[in-house]
Amino acid sequence: MKLSPALSRLIDALRTLPGVGPKTAQRMAFHLLQDGRPGAQSLASALGAALVSVKRCRRCRMLTEEDLCSVCAAPQRDTTLLCVVESPADVVAVEQSGSYRGLYFVLMGHLSPLDGVGPEQLGARELEALLGEGRVHELILATNSTVEGEATAHFLSELALRQGVRASRIAHGVPMGGELEYVDGGTLAHALSGRQLL
Amino acid sequence: MKLSPALSRLIDALRTLPGVGPKTAQRMAFHLLQDGRPGAQSLASALGAALVSVKRCRRCRMLTEEDLCSVCAAPQRDTTLLCVVESPADVVAVEQSGSYRGLYFVLMGHLSPLDGVGPEQLGARELEALLGEGRVHELILATNSTVEGEATAHFLSELALRQGVRASRIAHGVPMGGELEYVDGGTLAHALSGRQLL
Repeated sequence: MKLSPALSRLIDALRTLPGVGPKTAQRMAFHLLQDGRPGAQSLASALGAALVSVKRCRRCRMLTEEDLCSVCAAPQRDTTLLCVVESPADVVAVEQSGSYRGLYFVLMGHLSPLDGVGPEQLGARELEALLGEGRVHELILATNSTVEGEATAHFLSELALRQGVRASRIAHGVPMGGELEYVDGGTLAHALSGRQLL
Repeated sequence: MKLSPALSRLIDALRTLPGVGPKTAQRMAFHLLQDGRPGAQSLASALGAALVSVKRCRRCRMLTEEDLCSVCAAPQRDTTLLCVVESPADVVAVEQSGSYRGLYFVLMGHLSPLDGVGPEQLGARELEALLGEGRVHELILATNSTVEGEATAHFLSELALRQGVRASRIAHGVPMGGELEYVDGGTLAHALSGRQLL
Protein backbone atom coordinates (compact mmCIF):
# COMPACT_ATOMS: atom_id res chain seq x y z
CA MET A 1 0.00 0.00 0.00
CA LYS A 2 1.60 3.27 -1.12
CA LEU A 3 0.26 6.08 1.05
CA SER A 4 0.23 9.56 -0.46
CA PRO A 5 3.52 11.56 -0.12
CA ALA A 6 2.23 14.04 2.50
CA LEU A 7 0.96 11.16 4.65
CA SER A 8 4.21 9.18 4.32
CA ARG A 9 6.24 12.24 5.23
CA LEU A 10 4.11 12.86 8.31
CA ILE A 11 4.44 9.20 9.41
CA ASP A 12 8.23 9.31 8.92
CA ALA A 13 8.44 12.53 10.93
CA LEU A 14 6.37 11.05 13.78
CA ARG A 15 8.73 8.06 13.91
CA THR A 16 11.52 10.31 15.17
CA LEU A 17 9.58 10.68 18.45
CA PRO A 18 11.01 8.51 21.24
CA GLY A 19 9.23 5.18 21.64
CA VAL A 20 7.22 5.54 18.42
CA GLY A 21 7.51 2.75 15.86
CA PRO A 22 5.98 2.49 12.37
CA LYS A 23 2.57 1.20 13.56
CA THR A 24 2.17 3.84 16.26
CA ALA A 25 3.33 6.59 13.89
CA GLN A 26 0.71 5.51 11.34
CA ARG A 27 -1.98 5.46 14.02
CA MET A 28 -0.96 8.94 15.19
CA ALA A 29 -0.93 10.34 11.66
CA PHE A 30 -4.39 8.99 10.84
CA HIS A 31 -5.70 10.28 14.17
CA LEU A 32 -4.21 13.74 13.61
CA LEU A 33 -5.76 14.06 10.15
CA GLN A 34 -9.09 12.46 11.03
CA ASP A 35 -10.67 13.09 14.46
CA GLY A 36 -7.74 15.05 15.86
CA ARG A 37 -7.55 17.98 13.44
CA PRO A 38 -7.99 20.71 16.11
CA GLY A 39 -5.32 19.00 18.26
CA ALA A 40 -3.09 18.67 15.19
CA GLN A 41 -3.37 22.39 14.49
CA SER A 42 -2.37 23.25 18.03
CA LEU A 43 0.45 20.67 17.97
CA ALA A 44 1.86 22.14 14.76
CA SER A 45 1.76 25.69 16.14
CA ALA A 46 3.00 24.75 19.64
CA LEU A 47 5.91 22.81 18.13
CA GLY A 48 6.80 25.62 15.75
CA ALA A 49 6.62 28.20 18.54
CA ALA A 50 8.67 26.07 20.94
CA LEU A 51 11.37 25.46 18.33
CA VAL A 52 11.76 29.18 17.88
CA SER A 53 11.46 30.36 21.48
CA VAL A 54 12.75 27.57 23.75
CA LYS A 55 16.46 27.76 24.51
CA ARG A 56 18.56 26.92 27.53
CA CYS A 57 18.61 28.73 30.85
CA ARG A 58 21.71 30.93 30.94
CA ARG A 59 22.67 29.57 34.34
CA CYS A 60 21.59 25.93 34.62
CA ARG A 61 21.01 24.90 30.96
CA MET A 62 17.40 23.86 31.68
CA LEU A 63 15.02 24.25 28.72
CA THR A 64 13.10 27.53 28.96
CA GLU A 65 12.19 30.48 26.75
CA GLU A 66 13.25 33.03 29.39
CA ASP A 67 16.80 34.12 30.06
CA LEU A 68 16.68 32.31 33.43
CA CYS A 69 14.45 29.27 34.15
CA SER A 70 11.77 29.42 36.86
CA VAL A 71 14.04 27.69 39.40
CA CYS A 72 17.06 29.93 38.82
CA ALA A 73 14.83 33.03 38.84
CA ALA A 74 13.08 32.11 42.12
CA PRO A 75 14.43 34.29 44.97
CA GLN A 76 13.77 31.79 47.78
CA ARG A 77 15.97 28.92 46.52
CA ASP A 78 19.08 27.88 48.43
CA THR A 79 21.94 29.07 46.22
CA THR A 80 24.57 27.14 48.20
CA LEU A 81 23.34 23.79 46.85
CA LEU A 82 23.77 22.77 43.22
CA CYS A 83 22.27 19.50 41.97
CA VAL A 84 23.71 18.08 38.75
CA VAL A 85 21.27 16.02 36.65
CA GLU A 86 21.45 14.52 33.18
CA SER A 87 18.22 15.84 31.65
CA PRO A 88 15.37 18.34 32.04
CA ALA A 89 13.08 15.40 32.92
CA ASP A 90 15.31 14.71 35.94
CA VAL A 91 14.80 18.31 37.12
CA VAL A 92 11.04 17.76 36.92
CA ALA A 93 11.35 14.46 38.84
CA VAL A 94 13.46 15.96 41.66
CA GLU A 95 11.17 19.01 41.89
CA GLN A 96 8.13 16.74 42.14
CA SER A 97 9.70 14.91 45.08
CA GLY A 98 9.44 18.25 46.92
CA SER A 99 12.58 17.49 48.92
CA TYR A 100 15.10 19.86 47.34
CA ARG A 101 15.28 23.64 47.57
CA GLY A 102 18.63 24.30 45.89
CA LEU A 103 19.51 25.02 42.27
CA TYR A 104 20.24 22.69 39.35
CA PHE A 105 22.73 22.19 36.60
CA VAL A 106 21.48 20.19 33.60
CA LEU A 107 24.20 18.31 31.70
CA MET A 108 21.90 17.40 28.78
CA GLY A 109 23.48 13.96 28.58
CA HIS A 110 26.35 12.01 30.11
CA LEU A 111 29.97 11.37 29.20
CA SER A 112 29.97 9.09 26.18
CA PRO A 113 33.16 9.40 24.13
CA LEU A 114 31.91 6.96 21.48
CA ASP A 115 29.00 9.32 20.73
CA GLY A 116 31.28 12.35 20.76
CA VAL A 117 29.93 13.59 24.11
CA GLY A 118 32.80 14.94 26.20
CA PRO A 119 33.03 17.47 29.05
CA GLU A 120 32.63 20.30 26.53
CA GLN A 121 29.17 19.10 25.41
CA LEU A 122 28.01 18.69 29.01
CA GLY A 123 28.89 22.28 29.88
CA ALA A 124 31.78 21.38 32.21
CA ARG A 125 33.32 24.80 31.57
CA GLU A 126 30.13 26.64 32.57
CA LEU A 127 29.85 24.43 35.66
CA GLU A 128 33.46 25.14 36.59
CA ALA A 129 32.86 28.89 36.24
CA LEU A 130 29.71 28.59 38.37
CA LEU A 131 31.60 26.79 41.14
CA GLY A 132 34.43 29.32 40.81
CA GLU A 133 32.00 32.11 41.82
CA GLY A 134 32.25 30.67 45.33
CA ARG A 135 28.53 30.74 46.19
CA VAL A 136 27.99 26.96 45.88
CA HIS A 137 29.05 24.96 48.97
CA GLU A 138 27.96 21.50 47.86
CA LEU A 139 27.65 19.88 44.45
CA ILE A 140 25.07 17.07 44.57
CA LEU A 141 25.74 14.55 41.81
CA ALA A 142 22.37 13.13 40.76
CA THR A 143 23.33 11.55 37.45
CA ASN A 144 21.76 8.19 36.65
CA SER A 145 23.01 5.01 38.25
CA THR A 146 24.37 3.66 34.96
CA VAL A 147 27.98 3.10 33.90
CA GLU A 148 27.98 6.41 31.99
CA GLY A 149 26.19 8.21 34.82
CA GLU A 150 28.71 6.96 37.39
CA ALA A 151 31.64 7.94 35.15
CA THR A 152 30.13 11.40 34.70
CA ALA A 153 29.63 11.74 38.48
CA HIS A 154 33.24 10.70 39.09
CA PHE A 155 34.52 13.22 36.56
CA LEU A 156 32.43 16.03 38.06
CA SER A 157 33.47 15.19 41.62
CA GLU A 158 37.09 15.77 40.60
CA LEU A 159 36.12 19.01 38.89
CA ALA A 160 34.42 20.14 42.13
CA LEU A 161 37.49 19.12 44.14
CA ARG A 162 39.67 21.37 41.96
CA GLN A 163 37.33 24.28 42.74
CA GLY A 164 37.39 23.49 46.45
CA VAL A 165 33.68 22.58 46.49
CA ARG A 166 32.40 19.55 48.39
CA ALA A 167 30.77 16.94 46.11
CA SER A 168 28.18 14.36 47.16
CA ARG A 169 26.42 11.51 45.36
CA ILE A 170 22.73 10.70 45.88
CA ALA A 171 22.16 7.42 47.74
CA HIS A 172 21.53 4.18 45.88
CA GLY A 173 19.77 1.32 47.58
CA VAL A 174 16.50 -0.51 48.02
CA PRO A 175 13.58 1.62 46.70
CA MET A 176 10.84 2.61 49.18
CA GLY A 177 8.33 -0.22 49.47
CA GLY A 178 10.79 -2.55 47.76
CA GLU A 179 11.17 -6.09 49.06
CA LEU A 180 14.72 -7.38 49.50
CA GLU A 181 13.75 -10.68 47.93
CA TYR A 182 13.03 -9.02 44.58
CA VAL A 183 15.82 -6.43 44.54
CA ASP A 184 18.75 -7.18 42.22
CA GLY A 185 22.18 -8.01 43.59
CA GLY A 186 23.89 -4.80 42.51
CA THR A 187 21.31 -2.65 44.26
CA LEU A 188 21.52 -4.79 47.37
CA ALA A 189 25.32 -4.51 47.41
CA HIS A 190 24.95 -0.71 47.15
CA ALA A 191 22.36 -0.69 49.93
CA LEU A 192 24.69 -2.66 52.20
CA SER A 193 27.83 -0.66 51.53
CA GLY A 194 25.84 2.56 51.94
CA ARG A 195 24.32 1.59 55.29
CA GLN A 196 24.06 4.34 57.90
CA LEU A 197 24.39 4.11 61.70
CA LEU A 198 21.17 4.82 63.60
CA MET B 1 7.79 22.45 38.92
CA LYS B 2 6.32 25.06 36.61
CA LEU B 3 7.69 24.54 33.13
CA SER B 4 7.87 27.57 30.85
CA PRO B 5 4.64 28.39 28.88
CA ALA B 6 5.97 27.29 25.46
CA LEU B 7 7.10 23.95 26.93
CA SER B 8 3.80 23.38 28.74
CA ARG B 9 1.84 24.17 25.59
CA LEU B 10 3.93 21.71 23.57
CA ILE B 11 3.45 18.97 26.21
CA ASP B 12 -0.32 19.58 26.29
CA ALA B 13 -0.44 19.43 22.48
CA LEU B 14 1.52 16.15 22.40
CA ARG B 15 -0.93 14.63 24.89
CA THR B 16 -3.68 14.76 22.25
CA LEU B 17 -1.80 12.03 20.34
CA PRO B 18 -3.35 8.57 20.82
CA GLY B 19 -1.67 6.53 23.55
CA VAL B 20 0.41 9.43 24.87
CA GLY B 21 0.06 10.30 28.58
CA PRO B 22 1.66 13.14 30.55
CA LYS B 23 5.01 11.37 31.15
CA THR B 24 5.44 10.30 27.53
CA ALA B 25 4.42 13.76 26.30
CA GLN B 26 7.05 15.35 28.53
CA ARG B 27 9.68 12.90 27.32
CA MET B 28 8.75 13.64 23.69
CA ALA B 29 8.84 17.41 24.22
CA PHE B 30 12.28 17.34 25.86
CA HIS B 31 13.56 15.04 23.11
CA LEU B 32 12.19 17.28 20.35
CA LEU B 33 13.82 20.39 21.80
CA GLN B 34 17.08 18.74 22.82
CA ASP B 35 18.61 16.02 20.62
CA GLY B 36 15.71 15.86 18.17
CA ARG B 37 15.65 19.41 16.81
CA PRO B 38 16.15 18.43 13.12
CA GLY B 39 13.38 15.82 13.48
CA ALA B 40 11.20 18.38 15.24
CA GLN B 41 11.61 20.82 12.37
CA SER B 42 10.57 18.20 9.84
CA LEU B 43 7.68 17.08 12.05
CA ALA B 44 6.37 20.65 12.33
CA SER B 45 6.58 21.21 8.58
CA ALA B 46 5.23 17.75 7.65
CA LEU B 47 2.28 18.19 10.01
CA GLY B 48 1.54 21.68 8.73
CA ALA B 49 1.75 20.52 5.10
CA ALA B 50 -0.41 17.45 5.74
CA LEU B 51 -3.08 19.51 7.51
CA VAL B 52 -3.34 21.75 4.47
CA SER B 53 -3.07 19.19 1.67
CA VAL B 54 -4.50 15.89 2.95
CA LYS B 55 -8.20 15.44 2.32
CA ARG B 56 -10.39 12.44 1.54
CA CYS B 57 -10.45 10.45 -1.67
CA ARG B 58 -13.50 11.55 -3.68
CA ARG B 59 -14.55 7.95 -4.18
CA CYS B 60 -13.60 5.89 -1.11
CA ARG B 61 -12.98 8.56 1.58
CA MET B 62 -9.40 7.32 2.19
CA LEU B 63 -6.97 10.02 3.34
CA THR B 64 -4.95 11.35 0.41
CA GLU B 65 -3.90 14.68 -1.06
CA GLU B 66 -4.92 13.66 -4.58
CA ASP B 67 -8.46 13.72 -5.93
CA LEU B 68 -8.45 9.89 -6.01
CA CYS B 69 -6.34 7.71 -3.70
CA SER B 70 -3.71 5.33 -5.11
CA VAL B 71 -6.09 2.34 -4.89
CA CYS B 72 -9.04 4.04 -6.59
CA ALA B 73 -6.71 5.47 -9.26
CA ALA B 74 -5.06 2.11 -10.05
CA PRO B 75 -6.41 0.72 -13.34
CA GLN B 76 -5.89 -2.98 -12.53
CA ARG B 77 -8.14 -3.20 -9.45
CA ASP B 78 -11.32 -5.30 -9.51
CA THR B 79 -14.11 -2.70 -9.52
CA THR B 80 -16.82 -5.28 -8.84
CA LEU B 81 -15.66 -5.79 -5.23
CA LEU B 82 -16.06 -3.09 -2.58
CA CYS B 83 -14.62 -3.64 0.89
CA VAL B 84 -16.03 -1.46 3.68
CA VAL B 85 -13.61 -0.72 6.54
CA GLU B 86 -13.77 1.59 9.54
CA SER B 87 -10.47 3.46 9.19
CA PRO B 88 -7.55 4.24 6.84
CA ALA B 89 -5.37 1.96 9.01
CA ASP B 90 -7.69 -0.93 8.10
CA VAL B 91 -7.10 -0.23 4.40
CA VAL B 92 -3.35 -0.45 5.03
CA ALA B 93 -3.79 -3.72 6.96
CA VAL B 94 -5.92 -5.39 4.25
CA GLU B 95 -3.54 -4.17 1.52
CA GLN B 96 -0.57 -5.60 3.42
CA SER B 97 -2.27 -9.00 3.57
CA GLY B 98 -1.95 -8.99 -0.22
CA SER B 99 -5.15 -11.00 -0.60
CA TYR B 100 -7.54 -8.39 -1.94
CA ARG B 101 -7.63 -6.74 -5.35
CA GLY B 102 -10.92 -4.83 -5.15
CA LEU B 103 -11.70 -1.30 -4.03
CA TYR B 104 -12.43 0.13 -0.58
CA PHE B 105 -14.89 2.37 1.17
CA VAL B 106 -13.63 3.97 4.39
CA LEU B 107 -16.38 4.81 6.91
CA MET B 108 -14.04 6.84 9.17
CA GLY B 109 -15.73 5.40 12.25
CA HIS B 110 -18.66 3.20 13.17
CA LEU B 111 -22.30 3.79 14.10
CA SER B 112 -22.28 5.33 17.57
CA PRO B 113 -25.43 7.37 18.24
CA LEU B 114 -24.20 8.47 21.68
CA ASP B 115 -21.20 10.17 20.04
CA GLY B 116 -23.38 11.69 17.34
CA VAL B 117 -22.08 9.34 14.65
CA GLY B 118 -24.95 8.24 12.40
CA PRO B 119 -25.16 6.99 8.79
CA GLU B 120 -24.65 10.57 7.57
CA GLN B 121 -21.19 10.84 9.21
CA LEU B 122 -20.12 7.45 7.83
CA GLY B 123 -20.90 8.48 4.26
CA ALA B 124 -23.87 6.11 3.87
CA ARG B 125 -25.30 8.38 1.16
CA GLU B 126 -22.07 8.30 -0.86
CA LEU B 127 -21.92 4.52 -0.45
CA GLU B 128 -25.53 4.16 -1.59
CA ALA B 129 -24.80 6.29 -4.66
CA LEU B 130 -21.70 4.17 -5.40
CA LEU B 131 -23.71 0.94 -5.21
CA GLY B 132 -26.45 2.56 -7.29
CA GLU B 133 -23.98 2.94 -10.20
CA GLY B 134 -24.33 -0.82 -10.66
CA ARG B 135 -20.63 -1.65 -11.07
CA VAL B 136 -20.20 -3.24 -7.62
CA HIS B 137 -21.37 -6.87 -7.39
CA GLU B 138 -20.35 -7.62 -3.81
CA LEU B 139 -20.05 -5.45 -0.73
CA ILE B 140 -17.53 -7.01 1.71
CA LEU B 141 -18.21 -5.79 5.24
CA ALA B 142 -14.86 -5.70 7.05
CA THR B 143 -15.84 -3.54 10.02
CA ASN B 144 -14.33 -4.51 13.36
CA SER B 145 -15.69 -7.42 15.35
CA THR B 146 -17.02 -5.15 18.11
CA VAL B 147 -20.63 -4.38 19.06
CA GLU B 148 -20.50 -1.11 17.10
CA GLY B 149 -18.71 -2.74 14.17
CA GLU B 150 -21.31 -5.52 13.97
CA ALA B 151 -24.18 -3.01 14.16
CA THR B 152 -22.56 -0.98 11.38
CA ALA B 153 -22.12 -4.12 9.26
CA HIS B 154 -25.77 -5.05 9.80
CA PHE B 155 -26.94 -1.57 8.82
CA LEU B 156 -24.79 -1.58 5.67
CA SER B 157 -25.93 -5.07 4.66
CA GLU B 158 -29.51 -3.77 4.59
CA LEU B 159 -28.40 -0.75 2.59
CA ALA B 160 -26.74 -3.09 0.07
CA LEU B 161 -29.89 -5.21 -0.08
CA ARG B 162 -31.97 -2.15 -1.01
CA GLN B 163 -29.54 -1.50 -3.90
CA GLY B 164 -29.70 -5.13 -5.02
CA VAL B 165 -26.02 -5.72 -4.18
CA ARG B 166 -24.86 -8.91 -2.43
CA ALA B 167 -23.28 -8.24 0.98
CA SER B 168 -20.77 -10.49 2.76
CA ARG B 169 -19.07 -10.36 6.15
CA ILE B 170 -15.42 -11.34 6.68
CA ALA B 171 -14.96 -14.57 8.65
CA HIS B 172 -14.38 -14.52 12.39
CA GLY B 173 -12.71 -17.45 14.12
CA VAL B 174 -9.48 -18.81 15.52
CA PRO B 175 -6.49 -16.70 14.33
CA MET B 176 -3.78 -18.46 12.30
CA GLY B 177 -1.35 -20.17 14.67
CA GLY B 178 -3.81 -19.73 17.52
CA GLU B 179 -4.31 -22.58 19.98
CA LEU B 180 -7.88 -23.49 20.83
CA GLU B 181 -6.97 -23.73 24.49
CA TYR B 182 -6.16 -20.02 24.67
CA VAL B 183 -8.88 -18.66 22.38
CA ASP B 184 -11.79 -16.90 24.13
CA GLY B 185 -15.26 -18.43 24.13
CA GLY B 186 -16.88 -15.87 21.83
CA THR B 187 -14.27 -16.42 19.13
CA LEU B 188 -14.59 -20.19 19.48
CA ALA B 189 -18.39 -19.97 19.18
CA HIS B 190 -17.92 -17.90 15.99
CA ALA B 191 -15.39 -20.40 14.66
CA LEU B 192 -17.80 -23.29 15.24
CA SER B 193 -20.88 -21.63 13.79
CA GLY B 194 -18.84 -20.45 10.80
CA ARG B 195 -17.39 -23.92 10.03
CA GLN B 196 -17.12 -24.89 6.37
CA LEU B 197 -17.52 -28.31 4.73
CA LEU B 198 -14.33 -29.73 3.23
